Amino acid sequence: MSDDKHDKPFIYLDHAATSWPKPATVIEAVTEAMERDGANPGRGSHAMAVRASRILFETRKSLAKLFVIKNPNDISFALNTTMALNTAIKGILKSGDHVIATAVEHNSVRRPLEYLKSIGVIEVTYVEPDEKGILDAKQVQTAIRSNTKLAVVNHSSNLLGSILPIGDIGEVTRHSGVKLLVDAAQSAGILDIDVEAMGVDMLAFPGHKGLLGPQGTGGLYIHPELDLEPLMHGGTGSQSESIEQPAVRPDRYEAGTQNTSGISGLRAGVKHVLHETVQNIHTKEWTLTQIMMQKLLESKGIRILGPALGEARTGIVSFIIEGADPSEIGFILDQHYNMAVRTGFHCSPLAHGTAGTLETGAIRASVGCFTTSQEVEAFAQAVKEIVQHYS
Amino acid sequence: MSDDKHDKPFIYLDHAATSWPKPATVIEAVTEAMERDGANPGRGSHAMAVRASRILFETRKSLAKLFVIKNPNDISFALNTTMALNTAIKGILKSGDHVIATAVEHNSVRRPLEYLKSIGVIEVTYVEPDEKGILDAKQVQTAIRSNTKLAVVNHSSNLLGSILPIGDIGEVTRHSGVKLLVDAAQSAGILDIDVEAMGVDMLAFPGHKGLLGPQGTGGLYIHPELDLEPLMHGGTGSQSESIEQPAVRPDRYEAGTQNTSGISGLRAGVKHVLHETVQNIHTKEWTLTQIMMQKLLESKGIRILGPALGEARTGIVSFIIEGADPSEIGFILDQHYNMAVRTGFHCSPLAHGTAGTLETGAIRASVGCFTTSQEVEAFAQAVKEIVQHYS
Repeated sequence: MSDDKHDKPFIYLDHAATSWPKPATVIEAVTEAMERDGANPGRGSHAMAVRASRILFETRKSLAKLFVIKNPNDISFALNTTMALNTAIKGILKSGDHVIATAVEHNSVRRPLEYLKSIGVIEVTYVEPDEKGILDAKQVQTAIRSNTKLAVVNHSSNLLGSILPIGDIGEVTRHSGVKLLVDAAQSAGILDIDVEAMGVDMLAFPGHKGLLGPQGTGGLYIHPELDLEPLMHGGTGSQSESIEQPAVRPDRYEAGTQNTSGISGLRAGVKHVLHETVQNIHTKEWTLTQIMMQKLLESKGIRILGPALGEARTGIVSFIIEGADPSEIGFILDQHYNMAVRTGFHCSPLAHGTAGTLETGAIRASVGCFTTSQEVEAFAQAVKEIVQHYS
Repeated sequence: MSDDKHDKPFIYLDHAATSWPKPATVIEAVTEAMERDGANPGRGSHAMAVRASRILFETRKSLAKLFVIKNPNDISFALNTTMALNTAIKGILKSGDHVIATAVEHNSVRRPLEYLKSIGVIEVTYVEPDEKGILDAKQVQTAIRSNTKLAVVNHSSNLLGSILPIGDIGEVTRHSGVKLLVDAAQSAGILDIDVEAMGVDMLAFPGHKGLLGPQGTGGLYIHPELDLEPLMHGGTGSQSESIEQPAVRPDRYEAGTQNTSGISGLRAGVKHVLHETVQNIHTKEWTLTQIMMQKLLESKGIRILGPALGEARTGIVSFIIEGADPSEIGFILDQHYNMAVRTGFHCSPLAHGTAGTLETGAIRASVGCFTTSQEVEAFAQAVKEIVQHYS
């Protein structure tokens, strides 16, 4: 192993944390919004403020197209998926409600639920997927009680890469009067999402992962018939004279100045995704995971978490190496090979429980739409060298 | 009046909504962060994630220098000032608490307070400044009750430009065991702020106004001895295995992926402010308001709100023209003169009550650190022409 990583090309395999690089159009859109349309959207009727408002609306329109949402104003922007999930969870749940979640939920779902539980507001049932991270909609059906208000489901586990049957679960919740909140942190821009067809009442999504936008962006779709108590109360540039948060969308859920330049970048990212198509991106990423998994499995002592070779998954491949500390492997990959992966618990202790890696954590390599098969092969080769070194 | 505004240079006088243009270094910093340091801060130990984390920390350090905060980790980032204010207000108040606010608070303070009041959690007293928007600290003293937990004070009214005596109020609250939350939306980067010396327990500030950073940035300083219930619960990249939000700062108040590229821009903005010095920026902006006010007062029928000529104010000059609809004036300034101001209620109905303009709204012209005296004079000249046209 060479000690100097700088003679090796940088390989980024941490797309599940954030996508990189961004398309050039995204960076241009951010810059242009700051330089040309830098006024405060909705806070003035002068031409520059109108242009800033248009950026927000056009981005909403692109997102509505992507997720098959009828009214773009049912989408409100958020700092990140966590804010969108907090808005959904804390905005809909009332004292005495029961919630169903899965054991592959991220801490962005688990912690708000556990907080509400700890102060005596709600009860929570975690439905346990199989070891591969797959769940049957019937398990959700079985968990429903008379006071079940909400089911929260991760579309794809950020640890296991497994894909949960949202459409089937939506069928179940729709017929039981339970609202369905989907965490699309790992699926927006990567898996097909049709909120109507899948029975999704709320969809929380990041702007900076599969949608290729800048960090600091994300959003929440809220079904038009659902009304949430806003997470944030404040100025909206509309109905200033009212002491109450306006009822009109998206203002109701967008208090304060939005991240206009970031959202401009998000629009360019969504445009890129719509042009490439979600289907093609998913197929490409799945193929890369298959190459990676095949090569990784050539080394002895590697256990890959989640779905088996040939089965459906998103671009995430987490694994452990027998007898090796994941964080040490991550360090070697970074320092000697110039490769970026994420090790540890990935904010998903429940999923580690499911996978049986709660003690050790895991190494997570995740591909994006710009990842090449050469990069994936070089990565698997590096892991092979490390494993040989260890054994 | 010419109908074609495009032969006239664009004059931006809406800095109280957001500053524009941004320094070139700000745009470069945003771009560089996206291109070079685009990983997710705190979500990985690889070199790029470490660089992203460093951006956040260096920005915290610059802000700590600006506001005289001992520990940079007592600053957490937020989407905007509204989020910072919601975090502070909803995080500290418990059932039965009494709050003192002023009648020049923005809706970002008034609406969260009124929401908590409407659900029976708190009582609120609004202390009334004089017509110029000035308040005496003794008025706060008088309003304190045995159950007063918090005083919320706007450092400078976003309508009147008046400057409130934060240090004096801090003296009062400190001696009464009341916590002081300051809304620095119009003062961060423009007026001297020293949280220790002024007795500020929490400081909510925007990144995109006086600090010259991008929209989508802002933050909250929380005194190290104060513990708030976080507004958002979720992943922090730390203590993933805990179901509770970590106690460690800034993680406790920063769930989810932060706006790394925006925060990188904010760092460049703060650097610009530190280099120019807050004192020089304030003096420059004050001088510009004096030129503007002097020229505006040459026209008949103009009433300027807030402090009189020669008195202290920030870069905000709001006024009404007798017999004219402010929004129509704004429209003419935009369409015929290529000048951007904000008309209406500015999310501050209470302050309009104070100024006696609750029926009409007002025209607000606000200068920034790049505004020139030529621009201010051209603006006053345009208003003069409009007034002549009207009378």
